[in-house]
Amino acid sequence: MRGTVLHAARDIRVEDRPDPTIEQPTDAVIKLAATCVCGSDLWPYRGVDNVDKPMPMGHEYVGVVEEVGADVRSVKPGQFVVGSFFASDNTCEICRSGYQTACVRRESAAPTGAQAQYARITLADGTLVATREMPDDDMVPGLLAASDVLGTGWFGAVVAHAGPGKTIGVVGDGAVGLLGVLAAKQLGAERIVIFSRRPTRQALAREFGATDVIEERGDDGVARLKDLTGGLGAHGVIEAVGTQESMMQAIRSTRAGGYVGYVGVSHGVELPGQELFRSHVHLHGGPAPVRRVLPALVDLICDRVIDPGKVFDLELPLEEAAEGYRAMDERRAIKTLLRV
Amino acid sequence: MRGTVLHAARDIRVEDRPDPTIEQPTDAVIKLAATCVCGSDLWPYRGVDNVDKPMPMGHEYVGVVEEVGADVRSVKPGQFVVGSFFASDNTCEICRSGYQTACVRRESAAPTGAQAQYARITLADGTLVATREMPDDDMVPGLLAASDVLGTGWFGAVVAHAGPGKTIGVVGDGAVGLLGVLAAKQLGAERIVIFSRRPTRQALAREFGATDVIEERGDDGVARLKDLTGGLGAHGVIEAVGTQESMMQAIRSTRAGGYVGYVGVSHGVELPGQELFRSHVHLHGGPAPVRRVLPALVDLICDRVIDPGKVFDLELPLEEAAEGYRAMDERRAIKTLLRV
Repeated sequence: MRGTVLHAARDIRVEDRPDPTIEQPTDAVIKLAATCVCGSDLWPYRGVDNVDKPMPMGHEYVGVVEEVGADVRSVKPGQFVVGSFFASDNTCEICRSGYQTACVRRESAAPTGAQAQYARITLADGTLVATREMPDDDMVPGLLAASDVLGTGWFGAVVAHAGPGKTIGVVGDGAVGLLGVLAAKQLGAERIVIFSRRPTRQALAREFGATDVIEERGDDGVARLKDLTGGLGAHGVIEAVGTQESMMQAIRSTRAGGYVGYVGVSHGVELPGQELFRSHVHLHGGPAPVRRVLPALVDLICDRVIDPGKVFDLELPLEEAAEGYRAMDERRAIKTLLRV
Repeated sequence: MRGTVLHAARDIRVEDRPDPTIEQPTDAVIKLAATCVCGSDLWPYRGVDNVDKPMPMGHEYVGVVEEVGADVRSVKPGQFVVGSFFASDNTCEICRSGYQTACVRRESAAPTGAQAQYARITLADGTLVATREMPDDDMVPGLLAASDVLGTGWFGAVVAHAGPGKTIGVVGDGAVGLLGVLAAKQLGAERIVIFSRRPTRQALAREFGATDVIEERGDDGVARLKDLTGGLGAHGVIEAVGTQESMMQAIRSTRAGGYVGYVGVSHGVELPGQELFRSHVHLHGGPAPVRRVLPALVDLICDRVIDPGKVFDLELPLEEAAEGYRAMDERRAIKTLLRV
């Protein structure tokens, strides 16, 4: 098959790779319908994360089951499925408490890489969610978004306690931040304030439900948000970047007793204990347990209640994956969908 | 009146001070029945916090109202009252959400110092809680503990989600940690595990409800706690010290999806973002909003359901405050009560 491999920083190639096969009785092999490039793929692409050997890339996937291992019960060949980036058995105590990304059997869900024609998916029973029927073509981008960025933004919004009467801030206007806006809106938030300077992203944020946009950053941005909230700060803030600046922006924008949901993959962050202690915020986050909400998200998409697929503003054939990475790296695209 | 003043590191003196008077119409003046030395008083005593001018000391107090300002409605002269270390109006949006220690009008509750014969208490209506009747003498230590250390341990236990079926860890065997054990027990925790190496404190922890004691610290302590919890870690951990080591001990002892309630006053702590991200713990804490639960705690003490006064293992007259500080600094005493 053809698949995407990162050889070194900024050296991404689509090349011939072995066809994945069932290796464990809990595996499934799927034929990808579509895949995409994640903001977190840019960390190794940019050399921030080390690349010491060729890395098959991609962890977001939708497609049709080709084959399942002997122990797989919940999905079967021919079904259209969505899964998350970490495999989970969905039966251990941690999974049952809603933290499938910390499953005691956690492993990479797509070890062969999902930016490819086929992928081996581990712990298929606990990881994959089948749609009720074969989805229409125009639903595929939305279902693909559910695999990671929607589920991640949703988790951020849940942790930020988005709900009726609440003002929710969003730090980060990438796909996760934008879908955090959509999630906060679905969860009933009254006011949704995104920090964004880019007009196309501001427009999509407003389409997803943002009521206010703040262009200022740092202390000025915090001051603007406090102006909007009677001096108190937001009830909750979704942090969807993962840097020191974005974390402090989120913490300082949240009122005492409020909630920070941080879902941007943390890089180089050191949180000052004393400021955190005085801030009185709740801090929670990490790799989003997408699997917890995936069945509900799949239904919302298939019922056409939400269309998270709008975050894909560039669509390319798999063979042009390198251009898809470049466009995201240079911020020409929010998120690249790769047709397989 | 006589009152305690810290002049420099380890230079604590009881000296003549002006009698406090009503300065604001929202003030009350109380005659102290008892006061005490807080673990957090040791930070400036030890010179870890700067002492750039003489500091009247003490923020834990119980006593009888002498006089109230013109605007005070909820307490009156002759009543026995307990209050918290920060004054709160108990009517602002932040107070109503349960974060009285972040009240928009927050100020020191006892600016004249509570290790004294009399104290001026600010925002008396929102800060003070009167007992139903004059308490028996033997209840006074318990009510004094409610003023800070019990309320703080209780907040830690609430944040750690102590409740039926839960295993709760406690980092720190000072008064706050020990009363965190008592609180976790009252809240219904099934198993309460304290990290402690000192036999007298272990014994009091067991009396308060601890089911297990771990003497190891660091990675060994974490490993022992994981052994007790099927490899997963505690459902919640109360952090009652405030150092880098204690915070990491608490975070690493908590299972994915679990809760760290940190109430030790943070000193020199820097939390590693990436480890926090991967840990999947909920992190919340800060100066405990004691006022939130103070009426309920006062009732529990007056109804003789709990006796948090047992944390006082040294009782001295106010004039011997310096020895009270020394005994706590040298860990000869858990907590010193000063008779006024």
